[in-house]
Amino acid sequence: MDTLKLEKISQATKILDELDIDAWVLVEKESGVLSDPVARFLLDRDATWLSLFFLFRNGEKIALIGSLDIEKFKQLELFDEIITYKDSCKESLLKILQERQPNKIALNYSENSPVADGLTYGKFLQLNSLLDGTDFGSRFVSAESIISKMNGRKSQEEVRRIQKAVDITLEIYDTVVNVAQAGQTEKDLAAFLKDERNKRGLLPSWEEEHNPAVFAGPQETGAHSGPTDTTLQKGHVFNIDFGVKYEGYCSDLQRTWYLLKDNETVPPEEVLKGFAVIKESIQRAFAALKPGVNGVDIDTIARSYITSQGYDEFPHALGHQVGRNAHDGGALLAPAWDRYGTLPFTPLEEGQVFTIEPRLYLKEHGVVTVEEMVYITATGAEWLSKPQEALYCIPG
Amino acid sequence: MDTLKLEKISQATKILDELDIDAWVLVEKESGVLSDPVARFLLDRDATWLSLFFLFRNGEKIALIGSLDIEKFKQLELFDEIITYKDSCKESLLKILQERQPNKIALNYSENSPVADGLTYGKFLQLNSLLDGTDFGSRFVSAESIISKMNGRKSQEEVRRIQKAVDITLEIYDTVVNVAQAGQTEKDLAAFLKDERNKRGLLPSWEEEHNPAVFAGPQETGAHSGPTDTTLQKGHVFNIDFGVKYEGYCSDLQRTWYLLKDNETVPPEEVLKGFAVIKESIQRAFAALKPGVNGVDIDTIARSYITSQGYDEFPHALGHQVGRNAHDGGALLAPAWDRYGTLPFTPLEEGQVFTIEPRLYLKEHGVVTVEEMVYITATGAEWLSKPQEALYCIPG
Repeated sequence: MDTLKLEKISQATKILDELDIDAWVLVEKESGVLSDPVARFLLDRDATWLSLFFLFRNGEKIALIGSLDIEKFKQLELFDEIITYKDSCKESLLKILQERQPNKIALNYSENSPVADGLTYGKFLQLNSLLDGTDFGSRFVSAESIISKMNGRKSQEEVRRIQKAVDITLEIYDTVVNVAQAGQTEKDLAAFLKDERNKRGLLPSWEEEHNPAVFAGPQETGAHSGPTDTTLQKGHVFNIDFGVKYEGYCSDLQRTWYLLKDNETVPPEEVLKGFAVIKESIQRAFAALKPGVNGVDIDTIARSYITSQGYDEFPHALGHQVGRNAHDGGALLAPAWDRYGTLPFTPLEEGQVFTIEPRLYLKEHGVVTVEEMVYITATGAEWLSKPQEALYCIPG
Repeated sequence: MDTLKLEKISQATKILDELDIDAWVLVEKESGVLSDPVARFLLDRDATWLSLFFLFRNGEKIALIGSLDIEKFKQLELFDEIITYKDSCKESLLKILQERQPNKIALNYSENSPVADGLTYGKFLQLNSLLDGTDFGSRFVSAESIISKMNGRKSQEEVRRIQKAVDITLEIYDTVVNVAQAGQTEKDLAAFLKDERNKRGLLPSWEEEHNPAVFAGPQETGAHSGPTDTTLQKGHVFNIDFGVKYEGYCSDLQRTWYLLKDNETVPPEEVLKGFAVIKESIQRAFAALKPGVNGVDIDTIARSYITSQGYDEFPHALGHQVGRNAHDGGALLAPAWDRYGTLPFTPLEEGQVFTIEPRLYLKEHGVVTVEEMVYITATGAEWLSKPQEALYCIPG
């Protein structure tokens, strides 16, 4: 097994102890069809039949799997014991639990965090049927905090990979000013960025259909749709949302450009002000970041600053965690909207990586938005992306 | 939207009526992290926030999605109505259900069939929270039969694609006799097959790590582990389990070869008999296939024939459905073992595609196994793969 995964598993054992949880069970079945993202990352192989992977607080690791799957899980050299079954896993499952009597058994379900919600409802029901007549079912708790802490607290190696993904993204962004020009379509520009990514042999950090997303000029479409035939026009801004995956770890960054008119040497006052407000809102949010604060308070700092300057508030969260997924789950820098559940109220921790991505709309020019990436330190935060200092201008 | 998907959605509407189910709801959220396989196939785009896709018995189709996702779902041109939300989808969800009052609401959960089990437990809980105070939660039923019928009943276009995947696999198998020789490793042979697949620009129909799986000579390892450094030896059999994906549809086929010893012109009697028993067991199972029979009865025919000839029974199901997944869920040709749930007792239907894959073990020579693929017709079954008539022999 690679060092990074072993490191994350050993981190998980410590987190179990910290959270007073006795056992964490990953459940897989026909994982070629659908895989729990956490199990996929940690084990990285398909289980065919109902398979239970136990991680106990004392570090003990047991796999209970269909008999024909044994070779590939043996090769992992991770488990202290691998128990196989042909007909039913019930007897072995009960034995494992009865001998160890875990009081709290964590399963991967969460109303808040999709990365912590890899257990399907059918598998949950099946597990309960197998435990029928015992009280183990009443000991289930959500593994959301385990996963959120494990994914959030980045190791040095994880930060190194993310930094690399960030650097490459910014390097590609730096070339945009040389190729972008009025008359090009959003699709043209997206094709250029994809090409640059492909040249470097990298995958997109979210689905390619809208990575990069390119938005030119005033328009009502959402931030999550793909590039269109809309053309770049002088006097408009355009922005790009783009990210790459480097050795399994993501970047997610946005930048804004302005297309100077033929007689312009600098963007108009309202565009400069819009950008300055975005930049200042990011700086203010950044300055308040540190372990222990709630994301909702960081979101409020940026959101209220933008509205105080006379702009509408942005219709999404200020920032999310980034890791193996562009949207990596756990604590969010988000308003207290129902759709974000409890995540805006989950205190930040050292080692987490967040985006900061406010935006505002200029009716005559388009969307001004910048997305930076930051790392939470013991006492504050550090930039992973060199912040965009000024609007990039495309000569007229 | 492509014709095939529209065809499957219109098929689904008819199935709702047939099963007396009023509404089918696909639930997605951060589908870049984890996606319901059915929603992924039908919609083929990521939803960011909790998103509900309603298909009603009368054909009405509604999407309830986060506001920033609107463009990409509009582009689908599938939904009669797209409702967006920013904070919470609760009000719109209740309105949709209250106006239509579906009695049975199908959700994608299943203890039996992983392809019908795409709803995570967290999303199920979230849906129930949103419906708290109403009785809609008590109207939920499993969508297993809808999905099983929809995936099972292949359209002409689906069969065409599967047939093509089968033909290409057999074409590659035909070349093995020219390249395989004693002294090669399982890995060498696997590399050859992968290379042939890559040359044709195709993806594997299950994870590449054990596609192809190659098993040379007598060994205890399971059918689901990857190729090893074990070498092909004269006097041994070897078998390969291999499949490709053609325009999204899979093949899954096995063949067995024998390596003649230097002084042999035909394989030894016990190898010939082993192969003949496998071939006969497949023929007997095939002859009994038709709509309405239960898979357990087909499995028993092959299984009991093999044991009646003095061999151990094979430690897995006789056959599974194939479609967009190599293991496509729904009715199975399987024994009544707990791990197969109710699937051996689900009657077969016209239009389904199954594998037939018995095997037996020869202590001195290795595993003899053949996997064919068949199509269920109105009155019986047809071969999709030209059955292996005789052991392929590698000259000594």
